[in-house]
Amino acid sequence: MNGAESLVKTLLASGVDTCFANPGTSEMHFVAALDDHPDMNCILCLFEGGVSGAADGYFRMKGDVSATLLHLAPGFGNAFGNTHNARKAGSGMVHVVGNHAGRHMKYESPLRGDVPGVAGAVSHWVRESADATDVAADGAAAIRAARSKNGQIATLILPADTAWEAGSAPLVAEPAPAPDRPSAAQVEAAAAALTQPGAILYIGRGAMFGPARRLAGQIAAHTGARLMADTFFARAERGAGTPVMGQLPYPVPPKMEMLKDATQIICVGNNRPVAFFAYPDRPSLPEPPTARVHELCDPQMDAPWTIQALAQALDIPADAPFNAQPLALPDAPTGAVTLEKVGASLAHYLPENAIVMNESITSSFVVMPPTVGARPHDLLTGTGGSIGICLPCATGAAVAAPDRKVLALTGDGSAMYTLQSLWTMAREQLDVTVVVFANRGYQILHGELNDVGAGQPGRNAARMFDIVEPQLDWVSLARGHGVPATRADTMEAFNKALADGFASDGPSLIELVCP
Amino acid sequence: MNGAESLVKTLLASGVDTCFANPGTSEMHFVAALDDHPDMNCILCLFEGGVSGAADGYFRMKGDVSATLLHLAPGFGNAFGNTHNARKAGSGMVHVVGNHAGRHMKYESPLRGDVPGVAGAVSHWVRESADATDVAADGAAAIRAARSKNGQIATLILPADTAWEAGSAPLVAEPAPAPDRPSAAQVEAAAAALTQPGAILYIGRGAMFGPARRLAGQIAAHTGARLMADTFFARAERGAGTPVMGQLPYPVPPKMEMLKDATQIICVGNNRPVAFFAYPDRPSLPEPPTARVHELCDPQMDAPWTIQALAQALDIPADAPFNAQPLALPDAPTGAVTLEKVGASLAHYLPENAIVMNESITSSFVVMPPTVGARPHDLLTGTGGSIGICLPCATGAAVAAPDRKVLALTGDGSAMYTLQSLWTMAREQLDVTVVVFANRGYQILHGELNDVGAGQPGRNAARMFDIVEPQLDWVSLARGHGVPATRADTMEAFNKALADGFASDGPSLIELVCP
Repeated sequence: MNGAESLVKTLLASGVDTCFANPGTSEMHFVAALDDHPDMNCILCLFEGGVSGAADGYFRMKGDVSATLLHLAPGFGNAFGNTHNARKAGSGMVHVVGNHAGRHMKYESPLRGDVPGVAGAVSHWVRESADATDVAADGAAAIRAARSKNGQIATLILPADTAWEAGSAPLVAEPAPAPDRPSAAQVEAAAAALTQPGAILYIGRGAMFGPARRLAGQIAAHTGARLMADTFFARAERGAGTPVMGQLPYPVPPKMEMLKDATQIICVGNNRPVAFFAYPDRPSLPEPPTARVHELCDPQMDAPWTIQALAQALDIPADAPFNAQPLALPDAPTGAVTLEKVGASLAHYLPENAIVMNESITSSFVVMPPTVGARPHDLLTGTGGSIGICLPCATGAAVAAPDRKVLALTGDGSAMYTLQSLWTMAREQLDVTVVVFANRGYQILHGELNDVGAGQPGRNAARMFDIVEPQLDWVSLARGHGVPATRADTMEAFNKALADGFASDGPSLIELVCP
Repeated sequence: MNGAESLVKTLLASGVDTCFANPGTSEMHFVAALDDHPDMNCILCLFEGGVSGAADGYFRMKGDVSATLLHLAPGFGNAFGNTHNARKAGSGMVHVVGNHAGRHMKYESPLRGDVPGVAGAVSHWVRESADATDVAADGAAAIRAARSKNGQIATLILPADTAWEAGSAPLVAEPAPAPDRPSAAQVEAAAAALTQPGAILYIGRGAMFGPARRLAGQIAAHTGARLMADTFFARAERGAGTPVMGQLPYPVPPKMEMLKDATQIICVGNNRPVAFFAYPDRPSLPEPPTARVHELCDPQMDAPWTIQALAQALDIPADAPFNAQPLALPDAPTGAVTLEKVGASLAHYLPENAIVMNESITSSFVVMPPTVGARPHDLLTGTGGSIGICLPCATGAAVAAPDRKVLALTGDGSAMYTLQSLWTMAREQLDVTVVVFANRGYQILHGELNDVGAGQPGRNAARMFDIVEPQLDWVSLARGHGVPATRADTMEAFNKALADGFASDGPSLIELVCP
């Protein structure tokens, strides 16, 4: 058994059975080993940003790691942006990156590069196997690292000779250590703070879905605290029946406004609130200086346990009430397209138990609020601010949850970053309905240019913000990737395309011509 | 004047007047400054791999640096692959990367990342401005670094507050230091070696075009040495009238065969020959152990001066003859498509003074040889083994040389990596004819799997090598980006599309259905 085989067997023995891949020559023995193990589900992405983004979406819905296969330093570089997003989502993954054989590294070959350097800039854990006999143990350590602290980026670098030389027997990865928990004193203090007027229970990660989410709603109802989430998050249960939860807006002034009466902010599964960007005359921290921020349980700690501990400290009975989101299904609007109507239409048609991946950026500020009372669903958002996560993440989510409908909402600028994922959706016949908000540019930058006080756009700015001359034709782009598509410029057309998308089993795309 | 303005003025004052860009919020003040300076030619790319690849192509044809505009760590990550390729091509560029304001970096915001880490893994020079008053001087230093040693990757990281706060007066970058030269003794020894039987003059970079290339041919003719180049190179003059030059093949066995009689290998503008990858039973160094390798002038040294010095040491008169490539224009073939016929067709139609960017990988081994006697042209190739350089590099080359026809030859797997560059070609109405060799997969990997002794592909390997189910439709993909396209599955159709492409002024794409 060579090193590559020892790794594949270690992955499978450890329960890692999905591999998003774009391999090259330095990974050939790994490919051969995968070939001998058809129980490993290998999914080709035509660009590595699709690989890392899919591994992110997979983790968010599966709650466990997949492997990836990347080709040397540039391959990791191509995966960097969505690995950054995955890191911010707290998604674990095992990146397997080939490198040159050790003896080859002393010569200036075309693909010699700094794999540990580029990987180290975004990974929580990096190791380069020194010998083929180490690969099984290193692989097991990588899996354990990827599963630690609720999910981490673990990168295992395999010099080609460690793949082709004789390896050791495969191993089973040891269980990841339990994530850290706050002390009893910290929980007591936070519980007391929650009962103060102006308290906010500010949740993220594992407090956003499942039993912890319901319990968080019960805590809020019991204490009178506001239940809130960040603007962007990895995964949240949403829609009818879920505990009502506020969400911080993206721009700084309304964010400050929403927090202006806050006295106590108890963070569970979340870092403290912070502005997305810094601006010349605005603070980085949006809460009033008088508010006390309890960094009780950061995203790498045990949020479900912490919520449970708070509920116990507050003596909340199991059947305590919470403020449940009522079902609100608007009629499907007709006529000219507006973003408000699109939101109503989404709320009307969204099937129960759908997964919604939203990276529609500016459009979402208007589109998403009407969907809060839709049938219950999971909502995923871009977490790291690196655009191009929507299509890959939706791909990975659909692989992880093949029995669920996936709706991918994306701006046109964002979708262009990783449009190659459309092909993977077609190849795997994933049940994804993609809506591209074709507003012909990076609309958020118009607002940002104004917000930094940099004035109105002139020719150079307009040419960098606006995707016009020529316009993108998303129907052709989708068809080129093997995904059926339609253009919608009325609500009737949008409604029909959306209903058709949800009714069909494979992928489809709607180019929504919108303001 | 804020820091951003001081940088834009420094760039312009230093002769850097082209900026390939995909900006974000942290670069808004830089965008505003660009807006005030319409003499800066800002070119939007819809993905950062298009940005760095265009800067590469621009440098190769212009011989000078452009600036780029990238958005924090993920933006640099997206540009990483083609920055790697540019580094291997010896192309200089000034990457300007925004970062969070210093005061914002202590909080875990979505876009906080390790910009110096990812940049440092591929840049020759990295600096993060500490203060707005440093930006002009840091910018001038970056430009000088990018122009040093024949071209380097210089990355200037600008925290947002250094862009918006008051800066210093703009500066003019000091001239780059002259590149190093070999000693007189080294030149003498190399000149003597060139007269030995079995000598090879192995050239790259600045010895591949212009007067040095002709002189290298005269040296070869005078000494009897073989004139040779590497498999992949940044830029070479080629076609009728250029000195005949051999080229190392990609696979190791024929590379060893071509070098088996070598006794002296004199490297000028080149590193020593090396296998592209390591393989279990093949050496990294392809020459026989008895050959002496003279590492006379590495790619960062002064190749034109070294060639001149060798000619002087050998007393070669200015009008010495050289072995010139004869013009060989085959008839345009008809009938079924074969790669041999495609090569003949390219040779038939290629206009004089065209720029050919070739990343057709496996196809090129058959397609390119018949074009060696075509009308004189410049040939650019992928230099770093990171696929996806063709379309961006052709874009940058066309921007640098707007009066020349550009032919971009690319495999389908490679083109998918950075297909967004098609839109920039359409936006800028660049005179590029793109040929996509639609052989439906990463054909090179089939050969590599065999070459590493890993056996025949099974289901998992085939699903990672073959881009089928569904097939890509390049005509739709191109149209989606605003580029007119045709599919050619006969030589007649290919010939017509190619002639039409060269006859028109804007971009066009041919999907060549080929074996």
